[in-house]
Amino acid sequence: MQREFPRVGTLPAGPLDAITDVPGVRVGHCTLDDGAIQTGVTVIVPNEDPFLRRPLAASAVFNGFGKSAGLMQLAELGCIETPIALTNTLSVGTLLTAQIRKSLAGHPEIGRDWPTVNALVLECNDGYLNDIQALAVTEEHYEKALSAADRLFAQGSVGAGRGMSCFQMKGGIGSASRLASCDGRTYTVGALVLSNFGKMEHCLLQGRAVGKRLLERLEQMQAVSEATAPEKGSIIMILATDAPLDVAQLGRLVRRAGNGLARTGSIYGHGSGDVAVCFSAAQHLPWPEASEPIPLLRVPDKWMDSLFQAAAEATEQAIFKALFLAEPVSGRDGHIRHTIRELLPEWRDIIRENW
Amino acid sequence: MQREFPRVGTLPAGPLDAITDVPGVRVGHCTLDDGAIQTGVTVIVPNEDPFLRRPLAASAVFNGFGKSAGLMQLAELGCIETPIALTNTLSVGTLLTAQIRKSLAGHPEIGRDWPTVNALVLECNDGYLNDIQALAVTEEHYEKALSAADRLFAQGSVGAGRGMSCFQMKGGIGSASRLASCDGRTYTVGALVLSNFGKMEHCLLQGRAVGKRLLERLEQMQAVSEATAPEKGSIIMILATDAPLDVAQLGRLVRRAGNGLARTGSIYGHGSGDVAVCFSAAQHLPWPEASEPIPLLRVPDKWMDSLFQAAAEATEQAIFKALFLAEPVSGRDGHIRHTIRELLPEWRDIIRENW
Amino acid sequence: MQREFPRVGTLPAGPLDAITDVPGVRVGHCTLDDGAIQTGVTVIVPNEDPFLRRPLAASAVFNGFGKSAGLMQLAELGCIETPIALTNTLSVGTLLTAQIRKSLAGHPEIGRDWPTVNALVLECNDGYLNDIQALAVTEEHYEKALSAADRLFAQGSVGAGRGMSCFQMKGGIGSASRLASCDGRTYTVGALVLSNFGKMEHCLLQGRAVGKRLLERLEQMQAVSEATAPEKGSIIMILATDAPLDVAQLGRLVRRAGNGLARTGSIYGHGSGDVAVCFSAAQHLPWPEASEPIPLLRVPDKWMDSLFQAAAEATEQAIFKALFLAEPVSGRDGHIRHTIRELLPEWRDIIRENW
Amino acid sequence: MQREFPRVGTLPAGPLDAITDVPGVRVGHCTLDDGAIQTGVTVIVPNEDPFLRRPLAASAVFNGFGKSAGLMQLAELGCIETPIALTNTLSVGTLLTAQIRKSLAGHPEIGRDWPTVNALVLECNDGYLNDIQALAVTEEHYEKALSAADRLFAQGSVGAGRGMSCFQMKGGIGSASRLASCDGRTYTVGALVLSNFGKMEHCLLQGRAVGKRLLERLEQMQAVSEATAPEKGSIIMILATDAPLDVAQLGRLVRRAGNGLARTGSIYGHGSGDVAVCFSAAQHLPWPEASEPIPLLRVPDKWMDSLFQAAAEATEQAIFKALFLAEPVSGRDGHIRHTIRELLPEWRDIIRENW
Repeated sequence: MQREFPRVGTLPAGPLDAITDVPGVRVGHCTLDDGAIQTGVTVIVPNEDPFLRRPLAASAVFNGFGKSAGLMQLAELGCIETPIALTNTLSVGTLLTAQIRKSLAGHPEIGRDWPTVNALVLECNDGYLNDIQALAVTEEHYEKALSAADRLFAQGSVGAGRGMSCFQMKGGIGSASRLASCDGRTYTVGALVLSNFGKMEHCLLQGRAVGKRLLERLEQMQAVSEATAPEKGSIIMILATDAPLDVAQLGRLVRRAGNGLARTGSIYGHGSGDVAVCFSAAQHLPWPEASEPIPLLRVPDKWMDSLFQAAAEATEQAIFKALFLAEPVSGRDGHIRHTIRELLPEWRDIIRENW
Repeated sequence: MQREFPRVGTLPAGPLDAITDVPGVRVGHCTLDDGAIQTGVTVIVPNEDPFLRRPLAASAVFNGFGKSAGLMQLAELGCIETPIALTNTLSVGTLLTAQIRKSLAGHPEIGRDWPTVNALVLECNDGYLNDIQALAVTEEHYEKALSAADRLFAQGSVGAGRGMSCFQMKGGIGSASRLASCDGRTYTVGALVLSNFGKMEHCLLQGRAVGKRLLERLEQMQAVSEATAPEKGSIIMILATDAPLDVAQLGRLVRRAGNGLARTGSIYGHGSGDVAVCFSAAQHLPWPEASEPIPLLRVPDKWMDSLFQAAAEATEQAIFKALFLAEPVSGRDGHIRHTIRELLPEWRDIIRENW
Repeated sequence: MQREFPRVGTLPAGPLDAITDVPGVRVGHCTLDDGAIQTGVTVIVPNEDPFLRRPLAASAVFNGFGKSAGLMQLAELGCIETPIALTNTLSVGTLLTAQIRKSLAGHPEIGRDWPTVNALVLECNDGYLNDIQALAVTEEHYEKALSAADRLFAQGSVGAGRGMSCFQMKGGIGSASRLASCDGRTYTVGALVLSNFGKMEHCLLQGRAVGKRLLERLEQMQAVSEATAPEKGSIIMILATDAPLDVAQLGRLVRRAGNGLARTGSIYGHGSGDVAVCFSAAQHLPWPEASEPIPLLRVPDKWMDSLFQAAAEATEQAIFKALFLAEPVSGRDGHIRHTIRELLPEWRDIIRENW
Repeated sequence: MQREFPRVGTLPAGPLDAITDVPGVRVGHCTLDDGAIQTGVTVIVPNEDPFLRRPLAASAVFNGFGKSAGLMQLAELGCIETPIALTNTLSVGTLLTAQIRKSLAGHPEIGRDWPTVNALVLECNDGYLNDIQALAVTEEHYEKALSAADRLFAQGSVGAGRGMSCFQMKGGIGSASRLASCDGRTYTVGALVLSNFGKMEHCLLQGRAVGKRLLERLEQMQAVSEATAPEKGSIIMILATDAPLDVAQLGRLVRRAGNGLARTGSIYGHGSGDVAVCFSAAQHLPWPEASEPIPLLRVPDKWMDSLFQAAAEATEQAIFKALFLAEPVSGRDGHIRHTIRELLPEWRDIIRENW
């Protein structure tokens, strides 16, 4: 059964309304659901072998209270060279090693005749639901997520999103896409978020300040104390596009993920690791390198506005899909996260434009 | 007569709901209103002599299509040393020179025994209403704005805001303040914007997507062509606070001006110079320098969330005050900008929370 | 008569050993030499009309105690759209206006149907020799420098370099070029510096610590007090290349200007505005913009090392040419700057590799 | 027996000429020397419990071809909260997990009532000498290095430096300190480098271009092919100081590590991860946080020049100590790295100032 969710923005979505509307992109999960262990791994695969065909890429840090790895080399070289792995905060080291081993297995020249590989691993802290100290994620979980990568994939309380919270409700994985119209051409901007941020009182549902009502409902359902805890969340936002942007343009595009995030009520909280990575599936650097200058494209800058809007809308939409497609999860120490559908069953009425 | 405007956010405002709620801060305008000349100067004065008492400061560039001057040294030294001057794009040079002359007049040691002065001048392009090519702003206009600086000041179509447009309606100067509550202490975050950005179709009034309705109204009133022109706007956002933040914390705070901006529907457009400057009125560097380490304060990082929220809310509020406090202006070549009150007289009904 | 200077590095120079070895680049000066007025303007012209053909560009700030204007938009868009103007600190405003007027004269659409123009003006403080408070530079001086732009141009105490000091000796304008060899192709990296930085005691002549000896000589010639004053200098470093680098690669290249600077003994002093701008004469963005993605080239990253070396060597060489090609200048209040040739006549012996 | 090395710069060294001249700082190694396994771990400990007393800190990336972890949060919060661990590139994940486990063991509140810990792990690629694909470093090696931390520590081919190369000679760990004099006060700036960068032809010994001679010697000793391989190196530079700098000032100081590096001949090569981290042992943020603004000091900016010089000199000195204190190492596949003492036995003659 397909769950409903509020539509955001004015641009049309792609056929899947997901990051996999961008050609070649696949997503896979490995979900750990066992009592106090509520965590997992999600992998975004940009193409068949990103080490040999490195998508141009850029990143943006809106608030840097986070432990993601691989962003320094991404910024220097303007490309990614592994799949993008998402997991919980304390498992970054394990997934770094897993990504390295996988790359070595495919390309034994790495670290010998070739340089080492820059593994990209991003994270949020799922410690409210998950026994994060157990370090339950293993290298095998990365392999499973990678093997499962497909154009169609689940959203909500799955993969790395299993234990995540958002606005003190159940968060997790959400994805969306928007179509930008540029002088007659249509480009797709897809977003996938690992959504784990926000205080309930800040939540804006299509701009409506629903935080106060949500808090009242939550108080009816559980102890107030949780609702007022300081934020320790984060959000990872992955953007993909088939527009032929150069590295500098990707750097401009990825900053607009923050616009989508801000519109949900986020203040990029002090304790939050709010990080975005963007890549173009339409432009890559070959490895081994060419022996002459390679031709790349760069869209006219006047097209950026439509792409910016698509990035902002896809990000905001992906966050609301994470919220609305989630199922409730209970984890360590009896902690439970309810869903926005449980707390705000009248959401359709709220966003109806009855003015 | 006091004009009404929609209230934004949940935090309380200061007594003036203006940047001048921050102790010591004053604002002055010089407005040029003469046919095709619709422009001016606005000055934010942080204290009695910012060259001798340099407020700690930081800046953020959300989109850098702009010509503001003085930001490089601000970033290096973490302080400002002149008033902050706002004007139209092509008058930056004139105001730089005006600020320099004024500083030299007060402190003849500058450029001799002392280093030169870093004048801070920020701008937006008011060329739709104003004959910007006339370079009508003179050094005297800076003097007038400075002399007029006071705790109470006009908003809307005044000073540097005279010729500015926002969402293709009349924009200009807006200001607001919000009170952050930090473990029992209350700090003020004030914002002043020179608001000149945005496409009408993107406008979000407290999250409500009013763009389509605004466009329909505008079409009834004037030629459609203007409404669909590419954005050439910008916004300058000045934040002030009495919280004792250090330079690094100010750098984090100023980035939250972008959250307020994003919530109004901005996508930080390609052709927009979206720039924010923040200073603390509670911490300054003395000139001449001390001969020993000086004590400064740094608020606990856990207080930043409340300050972040105040910065986002004050910025969004200031933008809506610029829109709602503006009067319509007609300028060069018969161009005219209507106000949001004209176009959307039913605005109170739209934002009423009738769900 | 051609003055001699020490050769730096191992790469070969181009035919002119100047930034104008890069095809299309021209340089012009306007020198003001009248008693206490010892200042001027230097203009680097990248091509016939940089507003219509915008060279890809990047910048780097090594220490930001400076007042250069235009760098924000350069960073956002990755291109320049005016000639690069150099002058003294307090004349930035005047040259901004001059550049704007010149652009408007050539393209009346600017600020009307087209966006405004981003004028690029960089500066150093020549206040030791020049009566900088006199604001002697006018818009006409910009015009003169522009009109004089040519492939062949003077170096030393000319143009914007007229009043500049370097290591407390006479500095000014210097230029050099180096040829990078990339898989059989040869690219030129040219540098032009406005050199006004450094304490004498730090000076490294090809790595030899000649500062102490220089200080002894200076004490014999003039009051010691000047030699021990805190640094209030700066350096502007302009790099040009005919290699087809993209914006991100130019951003990497321009940072290597700092390596050349560091090797002369600079510590990027606190009071110094150490800024570099780099552009590619081989790649530009057209204006008005194309209506489809434009093809650009990107050299293999493995070629960057040779280009990096060329950038570092050309910068260091340009600084030493500024020092060795300068003539002594006396200016305001009887201040005088001697040349390194006067102070260190035995320089050839020092750098001879007699080990 | 104490090995000799060339002295760099003009400032005096501290009593140990090491980073441990900064009070409270300790360094420990764990060295793996077993056939093809030539690698290890080095730990810099800033104080007894950096999680509870977080030293103010900043970082700089000169070239970002590297995989260091922890820098994003360091940049956001301006402090470090674990020891600084150094190792080979492919062992970053393992050491991240080791640092996390150690922190959890000391503070079980982490990831529960407290936020997660930001482990700081920096790396270079020792794959020429070391079988880096073996992933031989384990969490126990981190423990051993940490246990061994002391004021006195070995330099050269030890710890993380065991398998490192520098200018295609044996590199590794080097450390130095310099004393800055500030209006009568003396502050220490200490440096520790993991030195693994550079092409032999670029090597500058106190500015003398010794690369050509080194290459000739190397050709006499071994195959030429190695000497001309593209650079795949890196350098990690750790600075510590007892000067009470604020975060912004530390950000300025750490950039001067690059000046020291540039003076050795480095061009911040394309394939190099050239990264610096700086912390103040005199200023820390307490955890748990205070409930009121905390007082911090900020040195007068005019003192920065002396501190900048100390940072540049200590870094350059540390690199030369890494080179001169190393012993030759042979590792995987018969690879061997000779020392600069072997290749250039006449080094004392070269740097003697006989002009």
